[in-house]
Amino acid sequence: MDIDRIEAAATRGAGRVRHTPLLSSPFLDEIAGRQVFVKAECLQHTGSFKYRGAWSALSALPEDTRGVIAFSSGNHAQGVALAARQHGLPSVIVMPADAPALKRANTAALGAEVILYDRAKEDRDAIGERLAEERGLALIRPFDDPQVIAGQGTCGLEIAEQATEAGIDKATVLTCCGGGGLTAGIALALEARAKGLRVRPVEPADSDDVARSLVAGRLLRNEVQSRSVCDAIVTPAAGKLTFPILQRLCGPGLTVTDEQSLRAVALAFLRLKIVVEPGGAVALAAALFGGQELDEGPVICTASGGNVDPGIFGRALEEMSGLDGV
Amino acid sequence: MDIDRIEAAATRGAGRVRHTPLLSSPFLDEIAGRQVFVKAECLQHTGSFKYRGAWSALSALPEDTRGVIAFSSGNHAQGVALAARQHGLPSVIVMPADAPALKRANTAALGAEVILYDRAKEDRDAIGERLAEERGLALIRPFDDPQVIAGQGTCGLEIAEQATEAGIDKATVLTCCGGGGLTAGIALALEARAKGLRVRPVEPADSDDVARSLVAGRLLRNEVQSRSVCDAIVTPAAGKLTFPILQRLCGPGLTVTDEQSLRAVALAFLRLKIVVEPGGAVALAAALFGGQELDEGPVICTASGGNVDPGIFGRALEEMSGLDGV
Repeated sequence: MDIDRIEAAATRGAGRVRHTPLLSSPFLDEIAGRQVFVKAECLQHTGSFKYRGAWSALSALPEDTRGVIAFSSGNHAQGVALAARQHGLPSVIVMPADAPALKRANTAALGAEVILYDRAKEDRDAIGERLAEERGLALIRPFDDPQVIAGQGTCGLEIAEQATEAGIDKATVLTCCGGGGLTAGIALALEARAKGLRVRPVEPADSDDVARSLVAGRLLRNEVQSRSVCDAIVTPAAGKLTFPILQRLCGPGLTVTDEQSLRAVALAFLRLKIVVEPGGAVALAAALFGGQELDEGPVICTASGGNVDPGIFGRALEEMSGLDGV
Repeated sequence: MDIDRIEAAATRGAGRVRHTPLLSSPFLDEIAGRQVFVKAECLQHTGSFKYRGAWSALSALPEDTRGVIAFSSGNHAQGVALAARQHGLPSVIVMPADAPALKRANTAALGAEVILYDRAKEDRDAIGERLAEERGLALIRPFDDPQVIAGQGTCGLEIAEQATEAGIDKATVLTCCGGGGLTAGIALALEARAKGLRVRPVEPADSDDVARSLVAGRLLRNEVQSRSVCDAIVTPAAGKLTFPILQRLCGPGLTVTDEQSLRAVALAFLRLKIVVEPGGAVALAAALFGGQELDEGPVICTASGGNVDPGIFGRALEEMSGLDGV
């Protein structure tokens, strides 16, 4: 993995992948006691940064590819489905049968064939391997794939440019971290393009495998299934490709509570006018409420996705009663 | 008013006024049966396009200006307050005493002195004139001012560029229209930079003075106080400067119901991940639900602001129960 692969992904994505804005608000700066910038990846196609990696991977496939397959109940599914349709390729998305109806409907509406499996009784990987072999489909992994990491890295190229435009050459970059694809991609891009920007991954408190792994110096897993509302970034562990990059370039990790994430969702609504899902708000939550653990200076946070259930969003807005006058 | 004044406003605003993204979603295209693009002005500083006009007007004031004054209960107030603070000038905002607490608090937090008056008993203009004279303040009008119109026109310059990038040389541009400042500014910019883009103003059905005025060929007023949820764009009439521009370059006008605006708010949440207030969603509502009145081809809509009360936003999201599978 190097910057050339990220630059190539950016070239393949030109005119397709959206350049997302870097937003800010004096009200957020006041809460944090420092300058806070938010990279609004929720405004990316399909509502999350996952489209970057999906487009990068799809656009790098050999010409004779007959179709693609992915496992996902969420943002990766929608990114792959749209990118596949735009490439004129069929896509199969393998989803747990209990995935939210809206995410299933969205993925199907973007042209994917959705295949449901029973989480308790069936082996997802076995289903996927059989389908991939039978139909000659290429597997698009959610994070542990060089072209996917390169695609997410294009977000880092934009951050480097936007920081320069804003006159910032030294800052902490907080990323919402699940499997580490976005975090690794951004870190690689910044290593090459903005050396003064240091990446620190942020996780939900009960899914802090990356923070612990960085301390331990080896890849640890979450032993207990997380119950966090930040479902989009809850993964068993970082990847074999992503973790060494995180280890070399990122850290220390930070964690936030669900309550802090929901408050960050509400503040992004109120002050930035963007819709962020709880898992996409952990970085902003750490910037706003975890300042004592950060070095001085400005913070740039990814708001990595916005695919939130209206009921959960409503719950976050109820938090606002406590925010008047903030 | 001409394009040079708009270009000059853009030059004065460089690095200050945010370039807002042009968003789209295949789901919205499907509802409308055509390509729909949304100019997300809710992502502008202070959450609405009003900051463009405020910055333009403030940055054009003589060097010896001692401060500014504005009448507004909403978006213009916040735009003027922030732009004044950034110019190091004191600002006075005259607001009705029954203005929403959050808007008062925001305006004050941005550094303005908020002066409340009783709508029933006091004359707003008399209060303003007295204050302006006593303290030597410059009045910043919400729309009927050449520098304000020029500032709003910078949104049109961006639309022209973004349409070209998207390969669009012929389209209908729908604007959320109150006093006509944004509509006139965009129309002037497009007249000079993108002749194939035709502007049509959109209003709430019970506040359709501009649509009627364009038909009548003279400036008409709304006789009855509107009860629309689209409060941000409810004004008694267009301006003496704005109306002749609308008459020369825009129309015919369109209207939408409150229910349609709230559905557009919900769809912008779901498909674009932006927070739009009902008055800022009338153009999108017309694109999605008023297609039979539009010429063929793509539509570009302004989403002009996002300063919406959480309760009203929640009401819009309840509309979503009817949107599943859309």
